[in-house]
This record gives sequence, C-alpha cells and structure tokens, in this order.
Amino acid sequence: MTAYDDLMAQERETQALAQVAGRLGWDQETMMPRAAAEQRSEESGAMQAVLHARRCDPRRGDLLAEAEAQVSDEVARAQLRHIRRDHDRAMLVPGDLAVALARLTSRAQGQWAEARAGDDYAAFAPVLAEVIRLKREEATAVARGRDLYDALIDDFEPDMTATRLDTMFAEMRPRLVDLRARALEREWPALDAHFDEQAQLRLSRELARNFGYDFARGRLDMAVHPFSSGSGDDVRITTRVSEHDPFNCLYSTIHEVGHACYEQGIDPEYRLTPLGQGVSMGVHESQSRIYENQLGRSRAYTGWLFERMRETFGEFGLDEAETFYRAVNRVHRGYIRTEADEVQYNLHIMLRFDLEKALISGDLSTDDLEAAWNDRFEADFGYAVDRASNGVLQDVHWSVGLFGYFPTYSLGNVYAGCLYRAMRGAVPDLEVHLSRGDLGGATSWLCSKVQVHGGRFAPAEVIARACGGAEPTAEPLLEYLEEKFGGL
Amino acid sequence: MTAYDDLMAQERETQALAQVAGRLGWDQETMMPRAAAEQRSEESGAMQAVLHARRCDPRRGDLLAEAEAQVSDEVARAQLRHIRRDHDRAMLVPGDLAVALARLTSRAQGQWAEARAGDDYAAFAPVLAEVIRLKREEATAVARGRDLYDALIDDFEPDMTATRLDTMFAEMRPRLVDLRARALEREWPALDAHFDEQAQLRLSRELARNFGYDFARGRLDMAVHPFSSGSGDDVRITTRVSEHDPFNCLYSTIHEVGHACYEQGIDPEYRLTPLGQGVSMGVHESQSRIYENQLGRSRAYTGWLFERMRETFGEFGLDEAETFYRAVNRVHRGYIRTEADEVQYNLHIMLRFDLEKALISGDLSTDDLEAAWNDRFEADFGYAVDRASNGVLQDVHWSVGLFGYFPTYSLGNVYAGCLYRAMRGAVPDLEVHLSRGDLGGATSWLCSKVQVHGGRFAPAEVIARACGGAEPTAEPLLEYLEEKFGGL
Repeated sequence: MTAYDDLMAQERETQALAQVAGRLGWDQETMMPRAAAEQRSEESGAMQAVLHARRCDPRRGDLLAEAEAQVSDEVARAQLRHIRRDHDRAMLVPGDLAVALARLTSRAQGQWAEARAGDDYAAFAPVLAEVIRLKREEATAVARGRDLYDALIDDFEPDMTATRLDTMFAEMRPRLVDLRARALEREWPALDAHFDEQAQLRLSRELARNFGYDFARGRLDMAVHPFSSGSGDDVRITTRVSEHDPFNCLYSTIHEVGHACYEQGIDPEYRLTPLGQGVSMGVHESQSRIYENQLGRSRAYTGWLFERMRETFGEFGLDEAETFYRAVNRVHRGYIRTEADEVQYNLHIMLRFDLEKALISGDLSTDDLEAAWNDRFEADFGYAVDRASNGVLQDVHWSVGLFGYFPTYSLGNVYAGCLYRAMRGAVPDLEVHLSRGDLGGATSWLCSKVQVHGGRFAPAEVIARACGGAEPTAEPLLEYLEEKFGGL
Repeated sequence: MTAYDDLMAQERETQALAQVAGRLGWDQETMMPRAAAEQRSEESGAMQAVLHARRCDPRRGDLLAEAEAQVSDEVARAQLRHIRRDHDRAMLVPGDLAVALARLTSRAQGQWAEARAGDDYAAFAPVLAEVIRLKREEATAVARGRDLYDALIDDFEPDMTATRLDTMFAEMRPRLVDLRARALEREWPALDAHFDEQAQLRLSRELARNFGYDFARGRLDMAVHPFSSGSGDDVRITTRVSEHDPFNCLYSTIHEVGHACYEQGIDPEYRLTPLGQGVSMGVHESQSRIYENQLGRSRAYTGWLFERMRETFGEFGLDEAETFYRAVNRVHRGYIRTEADEVQYNLHIMLRFDLEKALISGDLSTDDLEAAWNDRFEADFGYAVDRASNGVLQDVHWSVGLFGYFPTYSLGNVYAGCLYRAMRGAVPDLEVHLSRGDLGGATSWLCSKVQVHGGRFAPAEVIARACGGAEPTAEPLLEYLEEKFGGL
C-alpha cells in the first residue's frame, strides 16, 4: 500500500461515517419519536466527536504530506486538495473553540426560535452577539491573514471572496430593484382552490421521476422544512404539502430533486471519497434552482404541467396555460425570503450579505441590526417590515453560526443563469421537449457537464467548463429574468 | 473526575454510538432504498470498526482496573461488571479473527439464502463448516478453560451453561412431546376470512398502546421479519400484515411490544449506560413471551379481543369467544419454528440446541447435520420433514454465527412461566382486568419487578427476585401449558 492508498482507505471510512451522521439528521427531521430529542442530541454529539477526532488525527497529516509528494494523477490530486483543505481547517480551529461553538449555537437556536415566536429581537441580540464573537475567533484562526468574512465564505464556496460578490451584486441590485418595481405594477393571478394532499404527493413523485430522480437510490418523505440528504446510492429528499398551495409541494420537490440529482449523478468511482459530493453550496444551489426555475417554471414546462394538474385535480379555476404560467411565476409583496419569486429572492440575499459582512467586520453591532435590516428592506422592496419575525428573525442561519452561507444562494442563481444559457445552445429542441414534460435532454446535459464531476474541479471552474470556458457572471441570469418578467 | 467518572463518560459515548449503529440496522430493514445495500454495508462496517476500536482501547482497561479499585456502590459495581465482561471478551478475540468472522458470516448468509431458495442443503454445508471452524476458534479464545459451547452461550445469557439447560430441557421434552400428541388428536378451529390490512394495522397500534408501549418514545413500521430495536427514549418496533391472518400482525406486534416495553421501562438513570439495556436474551424473551402468550393468548384477554375484532372487522365466521380462544391457540402440524404454537415451539428449540452443541463439540459434522435434523424432527413431532427449507435450512441463525442463541428462546418461555405464576399471586383480579382488555396491572408489575432493573442484576437473579426468591425452573411453564392445552 502506498501512503495515498492508505490515506484513501481511511478517508473512505470517514466518508462512510459522515453518511451515517447525515442519515441521523434525516431521521431526526422525518422519523424520530418526539420524546427522543434529548437522547438524540447525545447520539449526534458522539458521532460528531468521532468525525472530529478523525479529521484531527495527526497520522492523517503525515500520510497526507507523504501522499502529496507521491501523486501526479489529476483525479488523485483533486482528492488530496479536498483532504488538505479539510485537514488544515480542522487543525487550525482550537478544539475548545469548536466545542464552545457547538454548545453555543445549539442554545442560540433555541433562543432564536423563542424570540421569533414572540417577535422580540432584543431577546435574541445578546446570544447573537456571542455567536458572532466566537465566529470571529474561528475566522481569525483559519484566515491566515485573509479577510475574516472571506475565511467564512470559504467553508461553503471555496475560492469565492466578498469582493467578487460585491462586484457581482452591485451589477444585479439596481436592475433587480427596477424589475421588481415594474413587475409589482401588474396584476398576477393566484390559485384559489382545494387540492387533494395525497394527489399532490403522488404528482410530486411523478415529477421527481420525470426530472431524473432515482427512487431505487432514494426516497421521498415529509418534513417541516424540505431538504435533501446523503450522497452516492442513498440520497433522500423531503417535501411538504398544503391543501391550498400545490406549488409549495411540487416546486419544493423539484428543488430538492435538483440537489439530489447532483449527488446521484456523480461518477460512481468517487463514491465515499472526498470527490463524491457536490463541490460547493453555490454549485449545489445552481442545480436545485435550474431544475426549479429555469426548467420547472418555464412557459414550455408549465404548459405541460397545467394539463397534468387538470387531469389530476380537475378544473381549479385557471382556464389558460398562459394564466397558469403567470400564477406559477407570480410576483407579489412579501417579507419572507423562502416565499419569494425569482426576481425578489436575490434582493433578500443581498440584504443579508451586506448585513452579515458588517456584523463580522464589526462595522455593525447586533444592537443596530434590526434597524439596519428594516431600513434596507424598505429601500429595496418599497414597503416597511411589520414585525421582527417577518424581518431580522425570519431565518435560522445566524443563530446556528452560518455566516458566509447566504450569498451562495444567489451565486447558485447566477450559476444557473450561465448554465441555462449554455444549455439552450447545446440541447436541441429544448422547449419542444419541455412542453411535453420531457426533461431528459436538459438533465442529461447537466449531469454530463456538471453533476458527474462531483468535487473534481473548483466551483467556478466546473461552471466555466460547462459554459464553453467563459467565467461565470450575472449577465445571463439578469437577461433571463428581464426577458421573462419584463414580458409577463 | 475519578477514574470511574472518566470511564463512564467514555462508555456513555460508546453507548450512544451503539444506538446509532442499531438505528442504522432499523433503517436497513424499514426505510433504506433498495439499491443502497452495498454502500450501506460500508457504512455499517465503518460503525462497527469504530465500536470495536473503542472496546479494545487499552486506556479502557487501565481506567476500568482503577475504577474497580475505587467503587463500592452496588449500582456502580454492576456497571463495572458489564464493562469488565465486555472488555475481557473484546481483548481475548484476536482482531483478525473478528474481521474474518464478520466477512465470512456476511458471505455465509447470502449462501444460506440461496441454498434455502433451492432446497439444497449440500450447497450450504461447506460454508457452514467454515463458520463453525471460526466460531470454535473464537470460543477457544474466550473460554479460558470452560466448555466451548458454554463460552458461546455466555454472549447471550451470562452465567448459563449447557449442563443446566440439559437438565431443564430433559424435564420438559417428554411432557411436551406427550402434550403435543394429545393436542394434535383434537380438532382446532382456524380463521377463514378476509381482514382489511389497514384496519389490522390500526388495531395493532391500539393493542400496542394498551400493552403499555409509549409511542412518544418509539414508532411502529413494517418489516419482513418483525423486530424491536433501540434503547432508552428511542425504541422502535415493526410488524407485518397478511390479509388472511390477522393473528400474525397482532401477535407479532404484541411480542415486539414486550421487548420494547422492557427497554422503555428501564430506570431512566441508566439511559446510555451499560445497565441501560435488557440484561440477557432470555430475560428479553421472557417479556415478549409473557406479553404475547400468557397475557395476550389467555382466555380472559382473547374474550375481550374477540369483541374488539368483531367491532373492527365485522363478523368473521367464528361465533363464540371460546372458539376464538381455541383459534388463537390452535395446535397444528407444521415444520416452521416461527409459526409454532406454545407447546411445539420449545420442541423446535431443543432440537436445535442438541444439534448445535454437537456441531460445536465436533460430535456432529456438517455432512451429517441434515440427516440428524430429520431424524430428530420425526421422533419429536411424529412426521417427516419434506424439504430442507422446512427443515435444517429454515433459520438464518447458524449462517450468521449465532450459536448458543437458540436456547434463550426456551429459557425466555421458562422465565415467563415463573413470572406468570408470581404475577397471578400478586396482581389482584388479574383475569377480570384482562377480560376488559386492561393490561395495566400486569404490565406495571412486570415493569417494577423486571424491566426497571435493566442490567442491574444477573439474568436468573432478576427473575428469582421477581418470584419471591425462588430459582427459576421449568415447572411453572409446564404446569401452565398442561393446564391450558390439556383443557382446550
């Protein structure tokens, strides 16, 4: 056995354990008995301790250095790049700090949930300040001289920086604010009927299959907040259902199918290795978004879906495919990020991005956060936030220490814009197929251009390669949105 | 921190990891996507490797010795007794042998399933011989001079020996053979109707609740072979359903509820410690059997169940409670252990016990096993085995290396007999309550006398304490069976 083989055998076992830990998380959101939460937190903690000890094992560093000196094959070097990144980060964060952060964020999440229920930001501010203090400590430990916020972004989107995001978002923001204002001047149709919940679930399974989700290597269950979980041959998705809003169920499912197809589409050779997962949050989100929006909310596909829904539910009050298309893409006033349409969604993200940058740099204190949120919201959206649960308290992310995560949602949209432009040039008769509910050409193209590579290329590189070499920019997304929503 | 505290903190984490590994097994039988099996075996293997490394960690032995010198409290000493037993066994089995056994039994189980499907014992015999060879090696490593088969029993029923079982079974066998012969002379009614499967499942949930199963700390799902899994606040059960045989669903559920109530009933102070599980397979089986048989198949309880089933399913062809009672307890010719009634079940076990003893001692070779099985079966049951899948190939146990496990089933019946005699003397108006479907008095008695103690007392000791100090013997079981089946 060479050092490389030895190292990879260990990493394979670690990846297998990480899959087990992930499945425990899935179980917690879907199957766990309600009184098992306390015991479960000990079980999850024990799994995290095992994984942490393996990441910090000094023998891992020795083997890694030895392997790096041996290996020249491109795929093997990509494996080592991931292990190196993970190893260095693990070694740089003091063990005490990692434990303190895990404990604090567990407490902070509880306090956030209470504060949100009571619309009381002041009750959450002190613990949030403490979370930010520890996240700054963590960022300082791993930054090695870089900007602190960049060091945090790196956990979710390797090689991305706040400066590059600033440039990208500065281009997007005025055009989206303008598009939002124009779109809100028009009337948008909405659904107003009852849709049988079991029929919604049956239809969402059918759509999942059409979008290429492999049920032999996954399953669909219910969860309060839909998510996708697992890699390789066991990638599970969840959805939710509301009798008056079938789009919630159907488009949550398509979104999670995008994430899941990415994981299911990775080269089986990479299974249970560092390359065997989606390469970044941004690229992951590009897959869920292009499935959900550019494909799932297209005029062509919704034309098919309109007929399929009428077969499934009978008449439901909209009588033309074009009206249905506008209902699917309805732009409306609202405070909540997760309920936003394609235009306003990115404005929600940019607001959070600017505020969390300022929180981490120290330019904004938690005492001033609520006012800063409300001012910015009114400036970008044109109306005032009515209460904290519709504003600064709406998202769980900051309470659990996720700083640098929000921008990857918009980056996913940007990447999806690039991919969609390239796909339209590459897949023959795309719209004809979509109008028949046939996603095969689109999803095969995504699989062969993006998904199959797993972690082999850097995030921006895998997108650029798929798009004929062009660096990803926001322009294709903005053109797509302006064409679609300008014309609706 | 004393050495004891330190040791217990480590054991707690190990117990938490063991719960995770167990839940992975539950997932595999209930939820896992069908194409995930290969990846799952790597995941389970990685968990077993982690658990094995913790059991064999030399620091564990050091801390244990230090703690044993410090501690005098009775409960703490019981904790250390379990850790000592586990530690010594883990240290005595060579690592290579443990790995070889895991690999071999995984392969042997596959070959057994194929051989059973083809009714071809000769195809299974070679790999079974190999399993027995390694099990003898393992037994030799852990026996420290004791009999090899006793060393294997010890894994499932600490302190039990083949000699004591021989004595017990020698008393039971002629009386059961006689009772079987007399029972088979009579006619037994059987169900012959259709029973809605969803209604069976609803009723089985109701029965589970009546027998004291806490759904807030568990859940009921479907599995091909019903089982119970987990300890503490997350104890899950499974059942199966067949439209022509509601007793299969209902009594499988009650049986697993007995196992689960044992785990759920353990003192919460012992959660995630070595005392926080049922103390042995025999005591575990005593709980599942007394729930299923002495209580669930009693004349009093079936009187209530008869009415409840008529409310649930409408008329189903039996018109008297006494006929229903005889249908529930129907004695019939059959080859399969898991389908046997209370009388014949123990004869199935004794056959396996005598054969596996001879296999381990070397007195019986795998070449002669099938003939030995068939001869013994005809002697005890009065008719010949028709094919291997109805005979020597019917159980999975030997293929996966479970030797010394079978006798704990009958031991569970013996213990259940002792407990039932004591319960009848201790619980006022037991039959009146059972005839109203009220199990509360019986299950509270079992909880306070047996279940609450978890691993605190040795197996025979916890039964003796529950029965006013008397050593457990087969006499109460035999009297119960002779009274019940002699009078039916």
